Amino acid sequence: MKQRMPVVENILSANDQLAEENRNRLEAADVFALNLMASPGAGKTSLIEHTIKGLSGQLDLAVVDGDIATSIDADRAAAAGAQAIQINTGGECHLDAVMFQSALKQLELSKYDLLIVENVGNLICPASFKLGTHLNVLIASIPEGDDKPYKYPTMYRGVDALVINKIDLLPYIDFDMDYFQRGVEVLNSGLVTFPTSCRTGEGLEDWLTWLQEKVANHNPVASS
Amino acid sequence: MKQRMPVVENILSANDQLAEENRNRLEAADVFALNLMASPGAGKTSLIEHTIKGLSGQLDLAVVDGDIATSIDADRAAAAGAQAIQINTGGECHLDAVMFQSALKQLELSKYDLLIVENVGNLICPASFKLGTHLNVLIASIPEGDDKPYKYPTMYRGVDALVINKIDLLPYIDFDMDYFQRGVEVLNSGLVTFPTSCRTGEGLEDWLTWLQEKVANHNPVASS
Repeated sequence: MKQRMPVVENILSANDQLAEENRNRLEAADVFALNLMASPGAGKTSLIEHTIKGLSGQLDLAVVDGDIATSIDADRAAAAGAQAIQINTGGECHLDAVMFQSALKQLELSKYDLLIVENVGNLICPASFKLGTHLNVLIASIPEGDDKPYKYPTMYRGVDALVINKIDLLPYIDFDMDYFQRGVEVLNSGLVTFPTSCRTGEGLEDWLTWLQEKVANHNPVASS
Repeated sequence: MKQRMPVVENILSANDQLAEENRNRLEAADVFALNLMASPGAGKTSLIEHTIKGLSGQLDLAVVDGDIATSIDADRAAAAGAQAIQINTGGECHLDAVMFQSALKQLELSKYDLLIVENVGNLICPASFKLGTHLNVLIASIPEGDDKPYKYPTMYRGVDALVINKIDLLPYIDFDMDYFQRGVEVLNSGLVTFPTSCRTGEGLEDWLTWLQEKVANHNPVASS
């Protein structure tokens, strides 16, 4: 790993401080938050749509959508039934704690149990910028190929759960699941994984159950 | 678009100067170079493998492979029969002109007609850093979804050709080709596109023919 310039270290350290402020703001309002990351088109917005619908009536949910341009994703989250805040990064390749803070200020946090942040579609840059969420979740996508843990180790190392999406495409793609899983295991031993298909619905039940438990354990009031 | 900080402008301007030096070095050796960009798993390495094999005996080809970690891609290019130089970016999300220059210094350029640079898998950052190549080529991948031109406009705006890969998966995915193509047309009117499947070989002939013509027109000696 090459050495970072002091200016880069300072930026990251300032970001961490703001991320801590964001976390305190979430805690004060009893909101559990997760940062959803993936490369473009892995299924972040689709998983969020399924999560909104699957938890409807059980948890009050808001979404913060990070994108370079357009509000396509936030519009989809809103259509699925959640309060959605769009952040256009203006070309930046990741969300940071400043952008997240500005989104948090637009939400009446006490109304929500769960906040999902959809980060910018990118397997690299978002891994370096904490937002202050409680969990980092990565979506891998079968058509991306089985070598991605090996090629994007920082991202795979830093997450708390892994959704392996588009498993409905496995019959049509050369994807060695053992090779993929070995790469994940080396980087992030024991990582909880959810093989899913947002297209067919397969595997989503396990994801929703796990997420509900995480929210409930953080804030027992929300699950009662 | 938000304003860039002066420090960012300076970095990009220094990069542009080095990119020009790289271009001069390529011209002096009569080497035609292309910068291949795409998100992770879109098929950059597969397209390079097919290009190496398809042009074997007609053009002498070298590959410069940019990756965060590992030499998986360079190993595949070498196995397909090309001279391959690996650049590990040490976490950086894109290649820049400095990294490309260091790779060029490792190659005996006069031996080659065509140099393909495989950039880091990322739809955002590589678009901002010129390398000094003659062409920028983007690979879109069907499973990424049909909204990508709208969501990553800078990348789509800045390229000279677009390969639309994994068309063999069209029957299994909700992908509206008209919607996709309209987005491309707005950003980059008249852009030459190559629908391909690196898995089945469909469409690769057109890509190879076009690329050979580009090399021949740049350097008539190489095509004789």
